[in-house]
Amino acid sequence: MAQKRKQVRKQRLGVWLFGAYGGLATTVVVGARAIARGLRGPQGLTTESDVARGVPFAPLGDLVFGGHEIRSGDYASAAAEIDARTGTLPEELRRALRRELAADSRNVVTGVLANAGATIQKLATAKLATGKAEARASLRAQVQRLQADIRDFQRKHKLERVVCVNLTSTEPLLRLGPAHRSITAFERALDKNQTSAVRPSALYAYVAASLGLPFVHFTPSNSALVPAIRELFEVNGAPFMGCDGKTGETLVKSALAPMFRHRNLRVLTWQGYNILGDRDGEVLADRDNKRSKVESKDALLPSILGYPLHTHVGIDYVPSLHDLKTAWDFVHFEGFLGFRMAMQFTWQGCDAILAAPLVLDLVRFADLAHARGEAGPMPHLACFFKQPFGVGEHDLHKQFEALRAYLDRVRSGA
Amino acid sequence: MAQKRKQVRKQRLGVWLFGAYGGLATTVVVGARAIARGLRGPQGLTTESDVARGVPFAPLGDLVFGGHEIRSGDYASAAAEIDARTGTLPEELRRALRRELAADSRNVVTGVLANAGATIQKLATAKLATGKAEARASLRAQVQRLQADIRDFQRKHKLERVVCVNLTSTEPLLRLGPAHRSITAFERALDKNQTSAVRPSALYAYVAASLGLPFVHFTPSNSALVPAIRELFEVNGAPFMGCDGKTGETLVKSALAPMFRHRNLRVLTWQGYNILGDRDGEVLADRDNKRSKVESKDALLPSILGYPLHTHVGIDYVPSLHDLKTAWDFVHFEGFLGFRMAMQFTWQGCDAILAAPLVLDLVRFADLAHARGEAGPMPHLACFFKQPFGVGEHDLHKQFEALRAYLDRVRSGA
Amino acid sequence: MAQKRKQVRKQRLGVWLFGAYGGLATTVVVGARAIARGLRGPQGLTTESDVARGVPFAPLGDLVFGGHEIRSGDYASAAAEIDARTGTLPEELRRALRRELAADSRNVVTGVLANAGATIQKLATAKLATGKAEARASLRAQVQRLQADIRDFQRKHKLERVVCVNLTSTEPLLRLGPAHRSITAFERALDKNQTSAVRPSALYAYVAASLGLPFVHFTPSNSALVPAIRELFEVNGAPFMGCDGKTGETLVKSALAPMFRHRNLRVLTWQGYNILGDRDGEVLADRDNKRSKVESKDALLPSILGYPLHTHVGIDYVPSLHDLKTAWDFVHFEGFLGFRMAMQFTWQGCDAILAAPLVLDLVRFADLAHARGEAGPMPHLACFFKQPFGVGEHDLHKQFEALRAYLDRVRSGA
Amino acid sequence: MAQKRKQVRKQRLGVWLFGAYGGLATTVVVGARAIARGLRGPQGLTTESDVARGVPFAPLGDLVFGGHEIRSGDYASAAAEIDARTGTLPEELRRALRRELAADSRNVVTGVLANAGATIQKLATAKLATGKAEARASLRAQVQRLQADIRDFQRKHKLERVVCVNLTSTEPLLRLGPAHRSITAFERALDKNQTSAVRPSALYAYVAASLGLPFVHFTPSNSALVPAIRELFEVNGAPFMGCDGKTGETLVKSALAPMFRHRNLRVLTWQGYNILGDRDGEVLADRDNKRSKVESKDALLPSILGYPLHTHVGIDYVPSLHDLKTAWDFVHFEGFLGFRMAMQFTWQGCDAILAAPLVLDLVRFADLAHARGEAGPMPHLACFFKQPFGVGEHDLHKQFEALRAYLDRVRSGA
Repeated sequence: MAQKRKQVRKQRLGVWLFGAYGGLATTVVVGARAIARGLRGPQGLTTESDVARGVPFAPLGDLVFGGHEIRSGDYASAAAEIDARTGTLPEELRRALRRELAADSRNVVTGVLANAGATIQKLATAKLATGKAEARASLRAQVQRLQADIRDFQRKHKLERVVCVNLTSTEPLLRLGPAHRSITAFERALDKNQTSAVRPSALYAYVAASLGLPFVHFTPSNSALVPAIRELFEVNGAPFMGCDGKTGETLVKSALAPMFRHRNLRVLTWQGYNILGDRDGEVLADRDNKRSKVESKDALLPSILGYPLHTHVGIDYVPSLHDLKTAWDFVHFEGFLGFRMAMQFTWQGCDAILAAPLVLDLVRFADLAHARGEAGPMPHLACFFKQPFGVGEHDLHKQFEALRAYLDRVRSGA
Repeated sequence: MAQKRKQVRKQRLGVWLFGAYGGLATTVVVGARAIARGLRGPQGLTTESDVARGVPFAPLGDLVFGGHEIRSGDYASAAAEIDARTGTLPEELRRALRRELAADSRNVVTGVLANAGATIQKLATAKLATGKAEARASLRAQVQRLQADIRDFQRKHKLERVVCVNLTSTEPLLRLGPAHRSITAFERALDKNQTSAVRPSALYAYVAASLGLPFVHFTPSNSALVPAIRELFEVNGAPFMGCDGKTGETLVKSALAPMFRHRNLRVLTWQGYNILGDRDGEVLADRDNKRSKVESKDALLPSILGYPLHTHVGIDYVPSLHDLKTAWDFVHFEGFLGFRMAMQFTWQGCDAILAAPLVLDLVRFADLAHARGEAGPMPHLACFFKQPFGVGEHDLHKQFEALRAYLDRVRSGA
Repeated sequence: MAQKRKQVRKQRLGVWLFGAYGGLATTVVVGARAIARGLRGPQGLTTESDVARGVPFAPLGDLVFGGHEIRSGDYASAAAEIDARTGTLPEELRRALRRELAADSRNVVTGVLANAGATIQKLATAKLATGKAEARASLRAQVQRLQADIRDFQRKHKLERVVCVNLTSTEPLLRLGPAHRSITAFERALDKNQTSAVRPSALYAYVAASLGLPFVHFTPSNSALVPAIRELFEVNGAPFMGCDGKTGETLVKSALAPMFRHRNLRVLTWQGYNILGDRDGEVLADRDNKRSKVESKDALLPSILGYPLHTHVGIDYVPSLHDLKTAWDFVHFEGFLGFRMAMQFTWQGCDAILAAPLVLDLVRFADLAHARGEAGPMPHLACFFKQPFGVGEHDLHKQFEALRAYLDRVRSGA
Repeated sequence: MAQKRKQVRKQRLGVWLFGAYGGLATTVVVGARAIARGLRGPQGLTTESDVARGVPFAPLGDLVFGGHEIRSGDYASAAAEIDARTGTLPEELRRALRRELAADSRNVVTGVLANAGATIQKLATAKLATGKAEARASLRAQVQRLQADIRDFQRKHKLERVVCVNLTSTEPLLRLGPAHRSITAFERALDKNQTSAVRPSALYAYVAASLGLPFVHFTPSNSALVPAIRELFEVNGAPFMGCDGKTGETLVKSALAPMFRHRNLRVLTWQGYNILGDRDGEVLADRDNKRSKVESKDALLPSILGYPLHTHVGIDYVPSLHDLKTAWDFVHFEGFLGFRMAMQFTWQGCDAILAAPLVLDLVRFADLAHARGEAGPMPHLACFFKQPFGVGEHDLHKQFEALRAYLDRVRSGA
């Protein structure tokens, strides 16, 4: 096993991004290149911290990026646009990486819009949104095209290993039905061109599963990890994990709430307000798309604290902030003798900057798991997600202990 | 062993408070009585949470309180004074507990002021501060008087078990020397009446150790747990732990800082400002006494994060707040690509309300350890202290896992 | 004129509260009594500050309270309930005022529910909400009953002067139409028993106007100060002012926004979030009632700053807070060279405590205006309202200068 | 008069900056150039807002910059250094202004260090700090050299009008004595080479006064506007104003405190904590220099509120923040019935960005006053200063009304 891994490690690792020119994906690509070139340090990457020492993760310099995208563009201009709004990707950095970014841009091809909803539809390049050919294409034809895109990428770059990551905008909740319960039923729906049974994320996840590629579902969209598609990942021996990267306010919640439990301080209310102004915020201003997000954030407190309480998670669109998200949380709790006290925090972070290292960490973990022959959900990655698939534990510290234990097992060759 | 413990449990447990009429001690006594009588719930008590289920802690109703105090007073009036300022101990509660509080007040006797420093001296009852007899008394005479006080308390209430708790005001740092290195040297200093080698906390701790009683050092004063006195606790088979109860801002720090480490987010600066207006704040306004406190709060971040960083812990006296302490912390950190972000929190709590349940938890844990035949430091109680004696781990969650593991051992009879 | 005023001043002043047992009205009554008896100081009252020196305001001890209320109760129990939740009206105070509160309670009579909306309806005493007699009563009959109630109060207490204050819960927005444009049209609607044209506030305001009594509209409900009713106030020579008392977050906004204008700092975004848990919060949880409130709060920033900007005013119901409202505001602005900076504030106040002194101030000002022969709107009182009737100026400081100028005129006998 | 002004306006206006390469001065120069060239808008400039419409201020494009500086450098590199730390002066902007910045740099000459104190001394270029010639030069020789520098600047650029601005680092408090009471005494001290009677700011202010040039004292150093030097300004017909630009936390205080007074809300405590990491912060870390600053900030609250209260102004050095100052203020106040409530705010701004437009405003106002024949203090500029010379009014809004009244007088030709 160890020997096989070593061979594998000699080759480069493909990273296929669904939503390839979004703010997050662009930050991932620019960042991976900058760190590989030594222009920036490895802050934010758990896989570069002491806990990961001695684990054979794919070197960042070995990554090859490609992906599907519904908007036109390229990494250099996407990065310049981001920098103008947030100051995260300065000119000198972009200049130094010009060549790499151009090469990565050549690997980005047109995505799909099947049943994406009006708000996402509006983001798409005019040609794609109104394109007759694409609009007429059956789901099956779309799936085959997506599969071919990824196989071309592998062939062109001689990549034995590819990890797929879903970074598309949050979609409206999909109403799940019989078509999502088994892979047979799902494929029948595809054959019948039953568009209402899918969303773009469903097609992307299905394509990854059908190719037997590891899959990271970084968004809250509920269409990707339905039982049918999970079944296909298991059958094809590919690991997957999701959903919704745990970055700002929710990360802090999951770190802080255990303190209240340890001390038997009774939390009465935990109100959270998030304001942000990036494309994600714009998409979330659509009430339907927001619902996916808010439900994803709201479950964790009762789980950590062990009792029901009054919670609220607000997300509001504030254009002037762009991606510089600000959150205010108000925690009202009872201590000794029922006396009421309060804690507040504000979190001022850049969403893409917080999320990008998680994407790289998850790509490396998924690749490692695949190399180790693991298939299906990766519960040891729970600490990276707001809704860790199949994991009931939301306490960040316990989740992190699980990660540490996994890495110990990897190091010990187990 | 288990049988012996059962017998022991039949008897009541003495709780001897050094600093018996302070805001914290008063809240401890009123609170224990209120909970025992069912007038209030057990919020804030870890020993009443699910982690402690099945562990034979002393019932709160079995506690008998007494203690040493340098100011005159009684629990009813001390509690009324506290309530007028903070609203924590309302009239109806005090009225319901009148009889118990009067009984407990009868167990409070005069404390000592040896080398206490000017600020603490000023708090003392005029008679004590200027009393000729006491002032002339040798250290040895004082020690013997303190020992006799506790023995009288035991005899009067037929208490086989007594736990001592130091809740006195923060003292100026004591310069440690050869006299503190061994019990022989320390007792020689007592014999020579070398007042500069002691502070009240040193005498109190020595008295507890000399009587072989469990001892909880809840304040940051550095004179209590010197090597000499620790030696005596070990010799006499008594457990001890300290120092400085971890309540507000520091508690949050120790819960939150691990998150930054897990995520490899580099903390550049952690500034903390505490404002409070109780007697403790007044004592800390004295630069000397403050030094003990600030040093106690400042060590934990580099320990959790694993690297040096810019930190600051300010404590300022704001009379209008009384015991309703407010803290503001500002955390400046670097994420992916070195981008800088910030988190702030404010913590608005009542110090005595936060600390009192810890005192009761610690009393019960110390009693349990003594009953189990444990002597010396109790490292499993690290989560309760800012400077846990002999424990390098400051991560609240890991400290709590150690506590949980200890309780598992207790339950399994190990 | 001055002579007439002096005579008037010899008599007591009736204060008729619509919504007499609400949290605010109860705090007004208890507070006025407490200050008059010297049990509390005059904090919060502009009419007791140096700006008002030498102006012949009605002494607080001369007030007689009465009012309409849809719930059963009395002041002593309403005050006890408030205190249990907020600690604002402690037992010793209520005990001392027992007799006065009982007397005031005897002046409270049953209010009306005409077209109040489901949420307010639910608050009403069962008997009133379902009472057949009342339900069958025509609008004209209801109006006559309300008029008789106030005249009885005047007769019983020999009151020449009565000021009416609307403190009822925020109602759903009333769709205004031809019936509200003239008093003739409005009275025709009453005669036709056109319930959809009124809300309780409309009836209360109409009753005050019909009796020629000064009227303070302290809530945002839009049914009270319609043109028809304003016409009647003018005709009957009575002054009025509204609407929606400016207490917490909005007060701060109107004090702070001018700073940004003076310095030519361009505000891009001003987001405000209010959380509160009293009956008002419960009523506002109903989307319809909330709309009245939010519209009332949102107009002032563009007016002060002189340009459109992104604003948001959120109000969320947090039961654990009761009346201890907390607001968080985030202000994003551009300075020199377009550089973006931010200011945040949190405001933690008790709504009733902030509003009650305004009610007393407004009662005194309204009485003063009436005595001076002023009728119609009182623009000098703009500083007390979120939506000052007929006043475009929202800058608190300029509003206050207008108040100061009015008081100067009063003092100079103009 | 109006005619004379028009002529004057045809010529360019010299701006002489003491502390010419500091962060603030550099931002002033880059900013003025950027706005004049239309590369940035006029945010932050009161003289470009509607209140100033129609007043003949010097066009920004007519300014010529020069100054004294104790460190070596040039504007391009100073600006690049600032941008690396704060992101306020981006590369594209500096590139576009390269030529102007080079020209302005040629007007910067060596400053003085007389009795500057160790902390400022350390900032100086090695050559200057240890230079034998300069060290040996008498105060009189230094003064003559400084005068010649400014005259050279005027001659070279054919400038009839020059405004001097003091932007040097905060100096240690100078103990004032007889030498500062009259210009005769002060000049005698210069003649006697009595170094302990001066600081650099004293020499700079003296030089401006001796040349009859308008002078803006933007720092809190107490040596500049001593009676002796003020006398000389009056004698020579030059206007002056100071001291200490009102930018961040103090600005907010002076805008907010009047609200508490208007509403008769009794402020018990106003605690303010400032953290910053620029050169100014470093200088203030020296306890002596800090004293000047803190005294400057602390006087205003009792003045606005009308009664003494508990206040605190902390300034701490946090290197990671550079010039991105953060302040946290906590306001504890009593409302109706003595109930206590709290307001907190955080202010996150860039000090140089907040101060630079004030410097440009003040230069234009000082030039206008000089052209109008005004000499001595300019009380209408109080709103720009923490300690407005000779003005007891600290309420920002009243100060701003005074400015508005002055501008009305200017427009009306009075």
